[in-house]
Amino acid sequence: MTNVQGTVNNGVNVAALLGAREALTATPEGAKFKWRASHKWVNGTHSRSTVSGFFGLGAEQKHKREWTFDADHPEIFASEDDGITPVEFLLVGLASCLTAGIAAVAQNRGIQLRSVQATVEGGMDIQGILGIDSDVRNGFDGITVRYKIDADATPEEIKAIVAQSQKRSAVYDAITNPTNVTVEVNEARA
Amino acid sequence: MTNVQGTVNNGVNVAALLGAREALTATPEGAKFKWRASHKWVNGTHSRSTVSGFFGLGAEQKHKREWTFDADHPEIFASEDDGITPVEFLLVGLASCLTAGIAAVAQNRGIQLRSVQATVEGGMDIQGILGIDSDVRNGFDGITVRYKIDADATPEEIKAIVAQSQKRSAVYDAITNPTNVTVEVNEARA
Repeated sequence: MTNVQGTVNNGVNVAALLGAREALTATPEGAKFKWRASHKWVNGTHSRSTVSGFFGLGAEQKHKREWTFDADHPEIFASEDDGITPVEFLLVGLASCLTAGIAAVAQNRGIQLRSVQATVEGGMDIQGILGIDSDVRNGFDGITVRYKIDADATPEEIKAIVAQSQKRSAVYDAITNPTNVTVEVNEARA
Repeated sequence: MTNVQGTVNNGVNVAALLGAREALTATPEGAKFKWRASHKWVNGTHSRSTVSGFFGLGAEQKHKREWTFDADHPEIFASEDDGITPVEFLLVGLASCLTAGIAAVAQNRGIQLRSVQATVEGGMDIQGILGIDSDVRNGFDGITVRYKIDADATPEEIKAIVAQSQKRSAVYDAITNPTNVTVEVNEARA
């Protein structure tokens, strides 16, 4: 089904991805990744996270550069708004994951993308986090991603690319299905 | 249970939060928020998301400034590594949410924080996203957050603060429980 036409270039090296799939099928231990962030409180609801290294292909890996992310609550919650809210990071991760998949699947199907844009919106009733109503969940009551895609393909082909990206998206899975989270307090000084 | 001692200052305005809770109990419609990101593909697996406005308290709201986030895949996946991976954004959001809650709960309990640090690690077997083994999920096989907290409190009090933050965390809920995600392709030009 691979159709990497010479004239189609979405910037994704599908041959390398297919090679990785073949290599990791032979050595599945290399497929075990660990993604990481280090994190510290700044003041109030403001915190800063740093992403630089991860583990994969059996070894420690480094991003080309270190990235830093400020999170805070907005001024309407009497905070300083020195960063985006924690929940907005999930919307960024979701759109990014689906779009990377769209580019890869389109390349694999020999379809040239011209532009991909999206808006992501997550609804949240903050009666949950404020403890007003225990029947209201803390997280999103739902998220909608709306794509506008311009490509050398029929609307049906484009929709099929998006559907395939959803099917293989790590973030789509992490948000739509439960993930176990363990929170440890390893050092607590008085 | 409110104990906002004059000597304790974690930078969280608990009085304002309690006021908001009271106000939104009377007018629950104002508690309905919509968080948003706009998003566009750059090239390959590289995309850029922008966060600036949201809806809440019955009106459109703006962050103090617009924030831009680059996401990409790393070089070991034959990508350019021009941003962190989509899944790492989830780790940033999770730590940020829990830490904002820790600061707020500590303030409400009259406990001075001196430092809060954490590492976040999410395991992932990429046999899932590569389509090698359909029994392997695409997302994280689990996430661990490890806190080191220095505060004017006993280890038990500190652990209780962290537990309460988990209980009210929007991102912890969004990751540990299923969230419905709808993906629409509103415009697909050939």
